[in-house]
Amino acid sequence: MNFTGSNILSVNQFDLDSIQYIFSVADKMQPYARRAKRTRVLDGAILGNLFFEPSTRTRVSFGTAFNLLGGEVRETTGMESSALTKGESLYDTARVLSSYSDVIAMRHPKSGSVAEFAEGSRVPVINGGDGANEHPTQALLDLYTIQKELAYHGQSVDGMHICMMGDLKYGRTVHSLSTLLSMYKNLRFTLLSPKALSMPDSVLATLEQAGHRVTVTEQVTESLDADIVYQTRIQQERFASPEDADQYRGKFRLNSEIYTKYYKPNTVIMHPLPRDSRAEANELDNDLNQHPNLAIFRQADNGVLIRMALFALTLGVEDQVQQHECAVNWFTNKPNL
Amino acid sequence: MNFTGSNILSVNQFDLDSIQYIFSVADKMQPYARRAKRTRVLDGAILGNLFFEPSTRTRVSFGTAFNLLGGEVRETTGMESSALTKGESLYDTARVLSSYSDVIAMRHPKSGSVAEFAEGSRVPVINGGDGANEHPTQALLDLYTIQKELAYHGQSVDGMHICMMGDLKYGRTVHSLSTLLSMYKNLRFTLLSPKALSMPDSVLATLEQAGHRVTVTEQVTESLDADIVYQTRIQQERFASPEDADQYRGKFRLNSEIYTKYYKPNTVIMHPLPRDSRAEANELDNDLNQHPNLAIFRQADNGVLIRMALFALTLGVEDQVQQHECAVNWFTNKPNL
Amino acid sequence: MNFTGSNILSVNQFDLDSIQYIFSVADKMQPYARRAKRTRVLDGAILGNLFFEPSTRTRVSFGTAFNLLGGEVRETTGMESSALTKGESLYDTARVLSSYSDVIAMRHPKSGSVAEFAEGSRVPVINGGDGANEHPTQALLDLYTIQKELAYHGQSVDGMHICMMGDLKYGRTVHSLSTLLSMYKNLRFTLLSPKALSMPDSVLATLEQAGHRVTVTEQVTESLDADIVYQTRIQQERFASPEDADQYRGKFRLNSEIYTKYYKPNTVIMHPLPRDSRAEANELDNDLNQHPNLAIFRQADNGVLIRMALFALTLGVEDQVQQHECAVNWFTNKPNL
Repeated sequence: MNFTGSNILSVNQFDLDSIQYIFSVADKMQPYARRAKRTRVLDGAILGNLFFEPSTRTRVSFGTAFNLLGGEVRETTGMESSALTKGESLYDTARVLSSYSDVIAMRHPKSGSVAEFAEGSRVPVINGGDGANEHPTQALLDLYTIQKELAYHGQSVDGMHICMMGDLKYGRTVHSLSTLLSMYKNLRFTLLSPKALSMPDSVLATLEQAGHRVTVTEQVTESLDADIVYQTRIQQERFASPEDADQYRGKFRLNSEIYTKYYKPNTVIMHPLPRDSRAEANELDNDLNQHPNLAIFRQADNGVLIRMALFALTLGVEDQVQQHECAVNWFTNKPNL
Repeated sequence: MNFTGSNILSVNQFDLDSIQYIFSVADKMQPYARRAKRTRVLDGAILGNLFFEPSTRTRVSFGTAFNLLGGEVRETTGMESSALTKGESLYDTARVLSSYSDVIAMRHPKSGSVAEFAEGSRVPVINGGDGANEHPTQALLDLYTIQKELAYHGQSVDGMHICMMGDLKYGRTVHSLSTLLSMYKNLRFTLLSPKALSMPDSVLATLEQAGHRVTVTEQVTESLDADIVYQTRIQQERFASPEDADQYRGKFRLNSEIYTKYYKPNTVIMHPLPRDSRAEANELDNDLNQHPNLAIFRQADNGVLIRMALFALTLGVEDQVQQHECAVNWFTNKPNL
Repeated sequence: MNFTGSNILSVNQFDLDSIQYIFSVADKMQPYARRAKRTRVLDGAILGNLFFEPSTRTRVSFGTAFNLLGGEVRETTGMESSALTKGESLYDTARVLSSYSDVIAMRHPKSGSVAEFAEGSRVPVINGGDGANEHPTQALLDLYTIQKELAYHGQSVDGMHICMMGDLKYGRTVHSLSTLLSMYKNLRFTLLSPKALSMPDSVLATLEQAGHRVTVTEQVTESLDADIVYQTRIQQERFASPEDADQYRGKFRLNSEIYTKYYKPNTVIMHPLPRDSRAEANELDNDLNQHPNLAIFRQADNGVLIRMALFALTLGVEDQVQQHECAVNWFTNKPNL
């Protein structure tokens, strides 16, 4: 399998084999992310980290992943400093900026813009989120986390039960994750949301055509034996009134009491982050912060591994990483990833 | 010739010998920019990349050039994060920030500010554009491109015919380029613009005093045998009305039809970028994108070589670059520069 | 003494022994800051430079310090690009961003926020200023400068006379510096400010309880034999009217005439910078710029040494710095630090 020179634009470009290959490369990145060792395989390579739409977490995750492989990062944040606002086409921007780097990670508010940029680029482009459209590295890290968390409990992805919860209509991450999961076998999906925020028909169709068992519901009691609960963030502006928001929280939030009452001892809790910890939202309560099944920070950690893997793959160095290993001098307390 | 410790502030500081020396160093940078090899000659050096006025393209080009020599980049973008807005003098800012780096690239909206900054700086300062005043690295990369493109067709700069087109009044790049070109012999300049946007008298005087043949005109037919057509961007706000803009486009735009009708098969097309691709501007049409004589992206590529050369020169390492060479591990598809 | 894995949050966490240990490590950083040699001791380590409140000088100083030890810097500037504005808790931000780096430097406008962040962080956090609360690296670099400047004149900190001048009420730096200085013996403090901007009682109490001689005054004549004059910046908005500001400048500014008239030939002039050079402020006149006792730029230089020391200490490499030494290839004119 060869990703050298490829773009990573959409979850639709992967099959199960390519996903497993990406994950096997991600596994090999653990000692470097954990700072047990260091590699300089991309010494001298330059990442163009183009965040035309700000996203601190994703931007820093890409940059860190590239640094951990030994490369340098040249960064652009926001639109105001960009020629795009002066009428430059994405094609021109891509032709010029791609000549300054070896690979590009890009986020942009406009749907389809990253693929358009990739047409002008002379180096591989990795989509870091293009509006409501795609955020493939998030979907890959979610799936990678699911696989690792289930494996820890002796389970596999095939046959598992996932409950997706909250805003399933506008939440880009649950759509892309569903696309990836549809390739596995005999899954059960419980889609728990208010009717106004339910999963789009196109996603339901994909899941059902692949033969999975799908339950669309407003009742938490339908998700009782879920292996994974994937909670999502909900934008405050989705609610018609404060009363609507209160009612929502009553039915679709997750906290220690609800978790203990309804779910299995091994049920893994996920969330794409950021979670909204303000009282008026609070979809995933801080009282679960110490719970061993809370996987939300392991998700973020896994993002670095996935992004390291994608950089190594698109630049064709996935088999040379160990060869450029060296020691780490300093002390860093990185919990096992 | 020795640039070690010098500032690069203005095109007026160069003579033909120094320009040819800079270009010879730029030539030596090609294998590194092309990623055929890597050099670590500036390993450990720090560039202070101070863009008090945003300019993604120029900022990233400077940063990339420094990384390609093995150095690190510390970046500042915009004014709001700067003590300059709290009444600090440029002298103080320069004294402090220059103590954090080994060389500084600086852009600032105020004319003369970079030279003022350089007085307080304890390391070399390279002007990345100071308002309407100077942008010497752009002028150098333009001239370097002209020389390379003409050489490709077996011509030299001496004796060539250049048509500068569009907004010649406010376009900083055509003024600086004219100053550099005036040092060559027997050039012909066709200055094609509406009267309201014609080349300033001071520039005309420079060209004429140097003995070049200068034609100021509104008629494209006067530029027919140009070796170089240097098109410029025009700010929408220069036009009194949409009708004025329409009339302008009718006479001063460049597209495949006009190019084929009026110019020689070898005429090189240049533009300082960004070009405005919106319908209401569109001074250089996308239908020329695949044309082999469209040199606009090669111009941008050459900017990295020129900036690498200036860093190597001001830090006195131009003769040590090869000595610190090493291999490149990864695959990057860089078309030949 | 072992700082490995520690946070640097407040001047209150230090005793005299730990301060002297930090300073001894800072001394060892001089050849690297001066570019006489280079060290790669932190090769591969990543600094998370999180400036949720902009501060060019402090941000670049931290970044440069980390680069000078061989490490990489991932930077975040401003709040708009942060999930904090979407209701994310500082705990979550810290858990996620700290997993991307080996040490964090952080500035934030809210008092106490850096300590709160440190609770969620899995790597050491260095406070780069949290609102009106603390800025411990500034206090350490001020004290380090005082000690070095006095040593140059054959004096020690014990027994010295310092005049703090200007806005002593809101100036965070003079509060923290006073806390550190209170640990020394037999100091004399002349606190020279208008009554409306005088030193808070809590700071006075700390100094007096430690047995130091404290004079609160509006008369410059009370500070005549000061060894150090520490001038501060005053916000324009502190004045009720332009007349108030005029009166203030008449009594509390420092320029060549006042310095020569009132102070000893060896009196050292300090200022936390930036100084306001506009005519309506001008608390420290440019006519002193060439004076050998003006230590304000040496203060800024010392900031790099102190921050290098803190990075080396919190990552546990202070004894390995020399072991990873290598040569510097390029020429940098760094005056002796």
